[in-house]
Amino acid sequence: MTRKQPDPAKPLVADWDALQRIFIRPEDEASRASLVKYMEQILFGLHDFLGRHVGITREASLETLAERFKESRINRNPERKLADVIRWVIEEVAPHGVNVASPYFVGHMTAAIPFFMVHLQTIVAALNQNQVKLETSKVFSILERQVLARIHRMVYRLDDGFYDQHVQAPDSTLGGFVVDGTLANLTALWVARNRLFPPADGFDGVEAEGMAAAARFYDCDRCVLLVSRLGHYSLRKAGGVLGIGSRAVMPVDIDGNSRMDTAALRATVETLRKSPRTRILGVIGIAGATETGTVDPLPEIAGICRENGIHFHVDAAWGGPTLLSERYRHLLDGIEQADSVTIDAHKQFYLPMSSGMILFRDPYLMDCIAYHAAYINRPGSVDLGIRSLEGSRPAMSLILGSALEIMGSGGYALLTEHGIETARAFADEIRRRELFELVTPPELNILTYRICPPAFRSALRTAGEQERQRLTGLLNRITVMVQRLQRESGRSFVSRTTLQRTGQPDTAVFRSVIMNPMTHIGILKEILDEQEAIYRRHFEG
Amino acid sequence: MTRKQPDPAKPLVADWDALQRIFIRPEDEASRASLVKYMEQILFGLHDFLGRHVGITREASLETLAERFKESRINRNPERKLADVIRWVIEEVAPHGVNVASPYFVGHMTAAIPFFMVHLQTIVAALNQNQVKLETSKVFSILERQVLARIHRMVYRLDDGFYDQHVQAPDSTLGGFVVDGTLANLTALWVARNRLFPPADGFDGVEAEGMAAAARFYDCDRCVLLVSRLGHYSLRKAGGVLGIGSRAVMPVDIDGNSRMDTAALRATVETLRKSPRTRILGVIGIAGATETGTVDPLPEIAGICRENGIHFHVDAAWGGPTLLSERYRHLLDGIEQADSVTIDAHKQFYLPMSSGMILFRDPYLMDCIAYHAAYINRPGSVDLGIRSLEGSRPAMSLILGSALEIMGSGGYALLTEHGIETARAFADEIRRRELFELVTPPELNILTYRICPPAFRSALRTAGEQERQRLTGLLNRITVMVQRLQRESGRSFVSRTTLQRTGQPDTAVFRSVIMNPMTHIGILKEILDEQEAIYRRHFEG
Repeated sequence: MTRKQPDPAKPLVADWDALQRIFIRPEDEASRASLVKYMEQILFGLHDFLGRHVGITREASLETLAERFKESRINRNPERKLADVIRWVIEEVAPHGVNVASPYFVGHMTAAIPFFMVHLQTIVAALNQNQVKLETSKVFSILERQVLARIHRMVYRLDDGFYDQHVQAPDSTLGGFVVDGTLANLTALWVARNRLFPPADGFDGVEAEGMAAAARFYDCDRCVLLVSRLGHYSLRKAGGVLGIGSRAVMPVDIDGNSRMDTAALRATVETLRKSPRTRILGVIGIAGATETGTVDPLPEIAGICRENGIHFHVDAAWGGPTLLSERYRHLLDGIEQADSVTIDAHKQFYLPMSSGMILFRDPYLMDCIAYHAAYINRPGSVDLGIRSLEGSRPAMSLILGSALEIMGSGGYALLTEHGIETARAFADEIRRRELFELVTPPELNILTYRICPPAFRSALRTAGEQERQRLTGLLNRITVMVQRLQRESGRSFVSRTTLQRTGQPDTAVFRSVIMNPMTHIGILKEILDEQEAIYRRHFEG
Repeated sequence: MTRKQPDPAKPLVADWDALQRIFIRPEDEASRASLVKYMEQILFGLHDFLGRHVGITREASLETLAERFKESRINRNPERKLADVIRWVIEEVAPHGVNVASPYFVGHMTAAIPFFMVHLQTIVAALNQNQVKLETSKVFSILERQVLARIHRMVYRLDDGFYDQHVQAPDSTLGGFVVDGTLANLTALWVARNRLFPPADGFDGVEAEGMAAAARFYDCDRCVLLVSRLGHYSLRKAGGVLGIGSRAVMPVDIDGNSRMDTAALRATVETLRKSPRTRILGVIGIAGATETGTVDPLPEIAGICRENGIHFHVDAAWGGPTLLSERYRHLLDGIEQADSVTIDAHKQFYLPMSSGMILFRDPYLMDCIAYHAAYINRPGSVDLGIRSLEGSRPAMSLILGSALEIMGSGGYALLTEHGIETARAFADEIRRRELFELVTPPELNILTYRICPPAFRSALRTAGEQERQRLTGLLNRITVMVQRLQRESGRSFVSRTTLQRTGQPDTAVFRSVIMNPMTHIGILKEILDEQEAIYRRHFEG
């Protein structure tokens, strides 16, 4: 924020000695005491701290906030002492952040995290290892390989012999940690692209020669990616980045349960295979769609891919950790047939922002994206940076590995089961209330619904095409407005999206994600009560 | 590590209530006391803590360590309590990590960080904001824009009017935070690619249609990227990822000072422009080469790019923060003419791993990589995820913004100046010792040298081509072996690389990076003493 210049005659960092001290410890006892106070609250009373400090002020408009953050110069002298900066962050900035840890924040895939995750992140920052190479990480590279093997085994369930062979073999790559699901999907499709256009006699492969040369050599005009209409936007972006084009992503229709229509997929694949100058780069199955939480019929998709020799990728950024629940892991059956799988650790593994993973069934598939340099990542080394989109990156794998030990699969299962079962109870409650319509019931722990008063409901039943459009447009505006008013009132947050459903007009819906273990059905009822009240205040009487 | 199963009759997380408690606070007073002990050491005695706990055990071989991290199953029940896991991480794992904070670790671009960076990282983890969208970050998105404007202004020095207009304008994008320099370079070249093959009548642009279609429409066979032989390997990787091919990166010769030979660049550009089916996607100038720390002649490169209408990117991942030193900022003159600039915050801004930035002179250039979705990043919103390679990501900008306030540009300048001046003193010391040869003197704070005993030096002066090859091969083996033995002895770490110099055989060198403010010339002399001792023990007498 803008504030007055400190007195230039009294610089806070007077000289080299002062700077070295600042580097190493608080400048004085008062400063230390102030830091201790905040750190103690954060590390040992996180959820109270967030409730007290974050997102609790009267709503300041974006315009007002923006005015306070316009200064673009860097001062020569420190603006304030360390303790004052920390106090400013906590007392003046954080209140205008978003309390994603609130049990009333059920709108996005970001929520409360266990307090010990903050301890682990603190340790990771303090150790400051760089996972790009062994020389700056050593045991942490080895530990990362173990954590990857654990997650790989959770997904693929291969036998002891497989994991004994590959968990620590320098020439094997079971996958990689990446910053998030977007980069995990990008990495999967990067590998799939290179696999589709490999080196051959007279061609050094698409990685070396590029897409234009690959198209010429392999005699093709375009390649396509098939995913349901609910595919994450990172897939289009990956198409754009990889030089196959964002338009390469062809949406496949969904059925009435928001899952990929596999008859439509089969028909599309058959049609595409008839045009010899089109290649199918991959089919993506979704395990936990961003908007609806639904899971595609993975075994059927796997079968179609196997029959046609197509790379099968599963985007389980959201749903992956459901595999740790014995009660619900069957919902993801078929995932073990995928060539590659995306899982986010900052979603249902409850890590701090951000950490994703990409896994490959075949531990040699990532060889087609290997890069070396003279100073690091030398051929034959165990440097994790050899097969990786990113270069420098922190040891987030230490956090996941430790959390798996602290929670056990049983602990994670309790969280997953709470989410799924609370979402089901929420769906029942929505069905019971006449103002609302459940649009997509929860398969995992995400559901969508909208406002649809009884009068509209009966009108919609008999309406013709045009009237239906008009009524839906009205309902959309109501839902969008109620969502906005609820968000602005600052107590609860449900997100919104617009669903495209086959044969129906675009439908604006509330989207609710139940992942916070402190969110219970009582809170969800309050959220519905508030929405009803807002509706009645603005649209009735 | 492998250890025995806990008694299945006594699960540590017995039930839902126990889990909720684990989520919120330490399970008991003993556990809390144990955590407090470690966190206090980490937060308030970081450098002592690292000296005591990290990388200090007798060297365990990789094979030995690998054996301990082979278990690939996830236990159903927690393996140990939280406090025990933290104790295990600190007492059993960390000692086998790398103490990158040691002043004797002068081998890589990773070093000690100010203790308060760990406090700031703790706060970022606790707040757990997701910068992909306003709804999960609010003020932190606004603050990020301010921090980007400050860094943009440090680089481009445009006027108040420019920054007043763009710092908080929803339709402007001065750049972005990314996970590291690799992704920053990738983002820059992604934009440059889309700029080279934009939408036109009958073509929707390379982003939508892909590289094969772009090549057809724009009638070209290949595009190339020009960078000196010292370019970072992430540039080749970016070529591979973007579908233009890793081979698109054409190395330009360097001069005797390890800088791009601009006569060679000019000649190459002229030759390439004569082949109408080749496009130059960009020229990259380096500001702080990874291996030698040298800075390309940026004003001359900028001129050549301007004359020829070529995108000019500067990779200042390393050197960028030198701009905060009034004494040395002239070394980067010309950077303000770049279309795009990469700067890493986890390097010379001393942030924890990892945080990079990409900056664009033109605040609308990133529009060509915009993506939207129905649930976030809606058109017209200020969601930072609209123009970004990554999706979910933490508020690392809060750390950089706070650090700039705590240190001031003056504080950062002291660090930079210490590094540059200590490296110069180190170079003088190397020159004084007859066993060593300074191979590339420090322009910033990186230098390379090798072992070259007097007898070899005189022999090299008179040797013919073949003898020169043989002698260099011998010297290379000596330097490589001394580097390895010193690393394995565990006290000091200098890295090594192999330099390709025009007209000379490949040369193995020690590479030294001076960024730790606790590294002084006395320590560097000890490092040379140790290298001399190793040499004498193994190669003499």
